[in-house]
Amino acid sequence: MSNSQKQNAFYAQSGGVTAVINASACGLIETARQHSDRIGKVYAGRNGIIGALTEDLIDTSQETDADIAALKYTPSGAFGSCRYKLKSLEENRAEYERLIEVFKAHNIGYFFYNGGGDSMDTAHKVSQLSETMGYPITCVGIPKTVDNDLPITDNCPGFGSVAKYVAVSIREAGFDVASMAKTSTKVFVMEVMGRHAGWIAAAGGLAAEKEGDSPHIILFPEIAFDKEKFLAKVDATVKQYGYCAVVVSEGAAYEDGTFLADSGTVDAFGHKQLGGVAPVVAQMVKDELGYKYHWAVADYLQRAARHIASQTDVDQAYAMGKAAVEFALAGKNAFMPAIVRESSSPYKWSVGEAALSEVANVEKMMPRDYISEDGMHITEKCREYLSPLIVGESYPTYKNGLPEYVTLKNIGVEKKLENAFKV
Amino acid sequence: MSNSQKQNAFYAQSGGVTAVINASACGLIETARQHSDRIGKVYAGRNGIIGALTEDLIDTSQETDADIAALKYTPSGAFGSCRYKLKSLEENRAEYERLIEVFKAHNIGYFFYNGGGDSMDTAHKVSQLSETMGYPITCVGIPKTVDNDLPITDNCPGFGSVAKYVAVSIREAGFDVASMAKTSTKVFVMEVMGRHAGWIAAAGGLAAEKEGDSPHIILFPEIAFDKEKFLAKVDATVKQYGYCAVVVSEGAAYEDGTFLADSGTVDAFGHKQLGGVAPVVAQMVKDELGYKYHWAVADYLQRAARHIASQTDVDQAYAMGKAAVEFALAGKNAFMPAIVRESSSPYKWSVGEAALSEVANVEKMMPRDYISEDGMHITEKCREYLSPLIVGESYPTYKNGLPEYVTLKNIGVEKKLENAFKV
Repeated sequence: MSNSQKQNAFYAQSGGVTAVINASACGLIETARQHSDRIGKVYAGRNGIIGALTEDLIDTSQETDADIAALKYTPSGAFGSCRYKLKSLEENRAEYERLIEVFKAHNIGYFFYNGGGDSMDTAHKVSQLSETMGYPITCVGIPKTVDNDLPITDNCPGFGSVAKYVAVSIREAGFDVASMAKTSTKVFVMEVMGRHAGWIAAAGGLAAEKEGDSPHIILFPEIAFDKEKFLAKVDATVKQYGYCAVVVSEGAAYEDGTFLADSGTVDAFGHKQLGGVAPVVAQMVKDELGYKYHWAVADYLQRAARHIASQTDVDQAYAMGKAAVEFALAGKNAFMPAIVRESSSPYKWSVGEAALSEVANVEKMMPRDYISEDGMHITEKCREYLSPLIVGESYPTYKNGLPEYVTLKNIGVEKKLENAFKV
Repeated sequence: MSNSQKQNAFYAQSGGVTAVINASACGLIETARQHSDRIGKVYAGRNGIIGALTEDLIDTSQETDADIAALKYTPSGAFGSCRYKLKSLEENRAEYERLIEVFKAHNIGYFFYNGGGDSMDTAHKVSQLSETMGYPITCVGIPKTVDNDLPITDNCPGFGSVAKYVAVSIREAGFDVASMAKTSTKVFVMEVMGRHAGWIAAAGGLAAEKEGDSPHIILFPEIAFDKEKFLAKVDATVKQYGYCAVVVSEGAAYEDGTFLADSGTVDAFGHKQLGGVAPVVAQMVKDELGYKYHWAVADYLQRAARHIASQTDVDQAYAMGKAAVEFALAGKNAFMPAIVRESSSPYKWSVGEAALSEVANVEKMMPRDYISEDGMHITEKCREYLSPLIVGESYPTYKNGLPEYVTLKNIGVEKKLENAFKV
């Protein structure tokens, strides 16, 4: 391919960020730089796909190799991400056409979209439309989501690190509570992310390696909350072990679908109080059993916790970014690299592939046999699946006692289009 | 000293546990073992001082050297701790007499009490009473408290690690929020411990090394909360940087002393909802400014976070335990080893001493000039003080992706007294 045919690439981060989405960006940009004979510049969307729609592109070639390498150790989305779901082709074809218009203006031949199910759907549609519009673009998805809900791939980059954070944290808090329970807190409740799927809550279960270990109870969104059964288990656990540690998913809900977090708390003005299932569960324990409680809500801390990222997760995130470029160069259009599990023990994995059409809008739920019969813990089968994903510690470097995370220059690319686009 | 004169030692952990109180226990037990010619067994109180009162002693000589060494890397209180404050001598002399009775029965000549201000007071009183009761005991306090509120010592072991956790976490969450702020959360509020003193909240400020860094606002218990001023700063910060990260101390309060956490939230039954200043502050931002928010409550996670402990803190905690034994052997009665700051940059420290009488019941507050003029951040002076305390990473070993924390055998010592004692 002659130099004149060399095309640029566009990369965007999408949806909730993770501790390792920048590791995918690192793998992608480093690999693209190794193929400068075939890929021109890598442009990134400022604030994700919005940057493409508004022609607000970042020229990553202005970043040093050292800063790109540092992305591997930096949480969050270095170019900005957004929660912006493109409407269906029927509803807003103009958005897709605009994307292609921008890609064309900047000689972009490769579209890399780093996100979850919605993003894979978008990448798929762009691929289809670009063909019909006579400006074919190679579209490659890169899996990312702490929720671990993409199909086909063994797991989603971002999940392993939040899983490790949650397992480490509930182990540590469990030790703390156990040592004070005689005269102080007897029940500790930790709230974790996962509105629809209990993967993150399940990861907390890894900390319980032997009988009596923290956590004793896990509340999943998949299992309808049974107050009586829950309280009975809390009480029995306190009586047996002196304390009880609970991991609750933000998506935990009653049989009728009402989130526990929505169960009636109002503020001083009578407004329904938003968020926080942990305090609701803790208060329930206090009201019904009288035990002293404490609760924690990790919120963004869990998905931003690069300081305790899983090495496996970092490696896989990087590999997905790298493979995306290799896919593009091999002409694999409308695919997503995927993690293939070769074996669980020892954990062996390789890079496989998934057609975007098969990934788009499919949610991988927790199998019922990953949850114990009583619905409040994980099974051995689940442990076998989850355990390898948190293995290895990938520590950032520190300066003055704080992790050195990079902030890129993020220099914009000159606009070429006359028309603005309102998102 | 002949073998027959050799006396045993008693060690107890007191109050809220920390990531490094076991490092002090490690320093103490390892040092005592090196002086087996003069110190017999080290007994630990099961669940702190309650173990002494109820003659429930743990024989630490039954633990292997490897397990004792592992204490250096294990958070929480390995022998159990308690929140049990002995009453004054006038109110309950019987408790103090009981302690001495138990010590006498087990040939205990050294009393080591690892805790905060109250514990130093107790150790001091035991020392005085033992003299008058004709059974002199060498009493040595060992400083510990995440609140960093003991006088004389440069800082309190336990504080540096929670400080590091808070600074790292708010940096990470800041990166996360910054990258999503365009379309998602604009204000993030993280609640940290510290009911009376703002040391822990101040530590969050270390993450803001340059203009615009997270956190942008810190709410201290020392500064009366001014809603209007706070909201104005949040708004200005969002307008300037696109987002705003807030660290709030659980002790943040209005001018009249009402805790923000107590400001009117009630549950479905009209009961006052306990705890959680972060959601209150976040809701305030939403109601008045309309910004999308998220909040986190780290609770026990922060003080149990051994995985991100400060090396400085671990070293100092160990040194305090070691020095306590050396003090006892040197006949220093009613003293506490203290950390002496020789210089801040580079940080140099040595082991000094403080009389228990001068430590007991004195709270070290944050100097006003450690807090910025507007009352919502830290000053350079504060940064100079805090910064060295979080330096260095002391990582535990990992197995299966999880930190290897030790659980001791904690074998009890046969009781010698006939009378039980009710606490």
